Amino acid sequence: MAEKVTLVGGGLAGSLMSIYLAKRGYEVYIYERRADMRSGKYEGGRSINLALSTRGLRGLAKVGLDQDVLDISIPMTGRMMHSVDGALKYQPYGKEGQAIYSVSRGQLNVKLLQLADQYPNIHMFFNCKCVATNLETCETTYINEHGETIVDKADVVLGTDGAFSALRDAMQRTSRFNFSQTYENYGYKELEIVPNANGDFQLDKNCLHIWPRKSFMMIALPNPGGNFTCTLFMPFDGNPGIDQLKTAEEITAFFQLHFPDAMAMMPGLVDDYLNNPTGVLATMRCYPWVRGNNALMGDSAHAVVPFYGQGMNCSFEDCIVLDECIEELGGDWNSVLDAYQKLRKPNADAIANLALQNFVEMRDLVGSDEFLYKKKIEHTLSEKYPDLFVSQYERVTFSTRDYAEALAYGELNDRVLEAIIQNKWEEKLDDRAFVETLFADHQS
Amino acid sequence: MAEKVTLVGGGLAGSLMSIYLAKRGYEVYIYERRADMRSGKYEGGRSINLALSTRGLRGLAKVGLDQDVLDISIPMTGRMMHSVDGALKYQPYGKEGQAIYSVSRGQLNVKLLQLADQYPNIHMFFNCKCVATNLETCETTYINEHGETIVDKADVVLGTDGAFSALRDAMQRTSRFNFSQTYENYGYKELEIVPNANGDFQLDKNCLHIWPRKSFMMIALPNPGGNFTCTLFMPFDGNPGIDQLKTAEEITAFFQLHFPDAMAMMPGLVDDYLNNPTGVLATMRCYPWVRGNNALMGDSAHAVVPFYGQGMNCSFEDCIVLDECIEELGGDWNSVLDAYQKLRKPNADAIANLALQNFVEMRDLVGSDEFLYKKKIEHTLSEKYPDLFVSQYERVTFSTRDYAEALAYGELNDRVLEAIIQNKWEEKLDDRAFVETLFADHQS
Repeated sequence: MAEKVTLVGGGLAGSLMSIYLAKRGYEVYIYERRADMRSGKYEGGRSINLALSTRGLRGLAKVGLDQDVLDISIPMTGRMMHSVDGALKYQPYGKEGQAIYSVSRGQLNVKLLQLADQYPNIHMFFNCKCVATNLETCETTYINEHGETIVDKADVVLGTDGAFSALRDAMQRTSRFNFSQTYENYGYKELEIVPNANGDFQLDKNCLHIWPRKSFMMIALPNPGGNFTCTLFMPFDGNPGIDQLKTAEEITAFFQLHFPDAMAMMPGLVDDYLNNPTGVLATMRCYPWVRGNNALMGDSAHAVVPFYGQGMNCSFEDCIVLDECIEELGGDWNSVLDAYQKLRKPNADAIANLALQNFVEMRDLVGSDEFLYKKKIEHTLSEKYPDLFVSQYERVTFSTRDYAEALAYGELNDRVLEAIIQNKWEEKLDDRAFVETLFADHQS
Repeated sequence: MAEKVTLVGGGLAGSLMSIYLAKRGYEVYIYERRADMRSGKYEGGRSINLALSTRGLRGLAKVGLDQDVLDISIPMTGRMMHSVDGALKYQPYGKEGQAIYSVSRGQLNVKLLQLADQYPNIHMFFNCKCVATNLETCETTYINEHGETIVDKADVVLGTDGAFSALRDAMQRTSRFNFSQTYENYGYKELEIVPNANGDFQLDKNCLHIWPRKSFMMIALPNPGGNFTCTLFMPFDGNPGIDQLKTAEEITAFFQLHFPDAMAMMPGLVDDYLNNPTGVLATMRCYPWVRGNNALMGDSAHAVVPFYGQGMNCSFEDCIVLDECIEELGGDWNSVLDAYQKLRKPNADAIANLALQNFVEMRDLVGSDEFLYKKKIEHTLSEKYPDLFVSQYERVTFSTRDYAEALAYGELNDRVLEAIIQNKWEEKLDDRAFVETLFADHQS
């Protein structure tokens, strides 16, 4: 009989991993806390839009879904910064032809579930809340919408149940399990820029729009319907704090002052602000990710803040790496899971740090001319010497090499760029030998 | 009717705090998971001996117990380092007359419970395991030894339930609660050096004995019975690792090689090693410590590694500070608990870091001549200029000023000592003006 793998959670990582496992012939059981998203009753999870990039697309390509998903996505080739006076500045993310893709979390999840449903060896159960786990026996217990208790016994249990994972919770109670949850002093509100009267986009649809305001910011991602999903990130205890804007007057006065151009396109602003919940931002780290035949994947192992747009991309990469470990090490689950956690942990730590750094960049630095000038030189180097210089953003977003490597190279790049600007070497950048020496000289 | 305060846990912090509260007229309920220690069935908690110092004594003095506890303690005036060849080196902890006190955790706890029992407004319940908490209503639920469920409703709930606190566990599930648990790659074994045939101590009883071996170490603290409680700290995955010594031959060979002098006085070594559990070492940090009228104290708020001997001392200081906040802010629990957490959090973080640093000092540095030379100069400065120079150890151990201050001054001291040694200024130390300038010059 085929080995049975149970996935606690049928979100993005769980549904993709189920297909990888099904293709290898395992019996796969998925228990999802929420209702079946295909029924149209999709409850928003952490955010409405995601930015799909190279790593995520690679994960989808392994099951032939990449083009299907690109078809429901909108490419964003760079950032568009909005100053208070309405002036716009554009900064490309990568080279000509490179983009990240705005996609609806719900629609992407539905695509994955639809594909999973075509495998007779994938068994999906919705409205099943995990209420107990036994790390010794690989038994997991659920309560469904009828109040019935389901006990599942598997050969392997994968925790794809997100930042508040029940499986990780059980691991936290085992000895020598390192764990941290760290919240930012920032909350977020999802808001909306509507289409114009003709149903068209009111801003350039091929950009990720940013309103950097130093201690807070708003961003907007395009949706196929002509609207943008906006997200305001603001401190809890700022002045004003995100939860301290309580009346229509306070909200409109605040937006009028800081985001006048956007506000004109946000007719539902006050209602959205008052009715939408305030989201929170946390980084969660743990290790080990494996106890016996139980392993954590995606946000359950490494919830990150959303500022590098890599949460889903990193989770899909977890799935790829676990699948590769299965391929290489066959049915020896001890070796498979251990290899998986050792390969992924340094990269999860790296993207967690990168995401925290990028928050400062997005809300503060992108608003300054010095920063944009540095980015311009970076872009020049990247276009001129693609073999020598790859920006940190490109390494993270348009590559499938390790996040840990991207973090390390980013520091080298920064030293080189500082040297160029300080010494006014911009006109020497046509000289390849000079640039080569520059990089060699700035190795740590 | 008097307000009711419930303490989840009747260990050291819980029993001391109960007396402070009773003296202020509150109705105090204590629910303790373990049996009543006064019945003699004391189950060892984290360790058998504790090192009581100035902060802890101050906590006891507030309820008049300091002399009673000193009477059952043994003063230790310094460290005695044992090299492999049996050579001894002594380093005093502080000035003439200063000492830390080896005391049995169980006996100290019994003294506190006996005193608590004299207050009619303290109600103690043993064998009561906390199984649920409600942070909104201050209801806590217990199961006792008969399997009965007890629901307690209080005005205020204090979590004095240790490193694996049930109350903190409930707080971890609330939003924006920061938490981390970090385990060292070290385990420990409690062992014993027995008295000689006459019942006398076989080593100097007024020292804390250390066998520093760089990556591992053993320590020994005196007990009134003439024996020493030894603790071996060793990596889990070292060579050999603490759990990899599995036979009498392996254990005796290891001790013969590294601790030959001690081994001669440890007739029960093999049995103890094989039968005693391997302890683990963790640092736990969290914030906030307060949700509504629920607050964490002692190890539940800040479990630290034991290498500065400050776990209990710090917990008693929590009790003192909370009591002072009650005194100052009266019955306004919101203000009381918030003031308490803000005063204590930086100090809990500082002692956690100091304890981690001291592990390196104890197992590695104290074995080197350079380190002992530095300590000698430190001692000279401390004796000659008590108003100018107070060592970090003295600030932590023989003072009641903030741990955070001790951490900061320790860094200044280090810079000064490095300068003296590097520049060979030892002979100038009689010149007060020179020493004053030295300190002024090395302020960060």
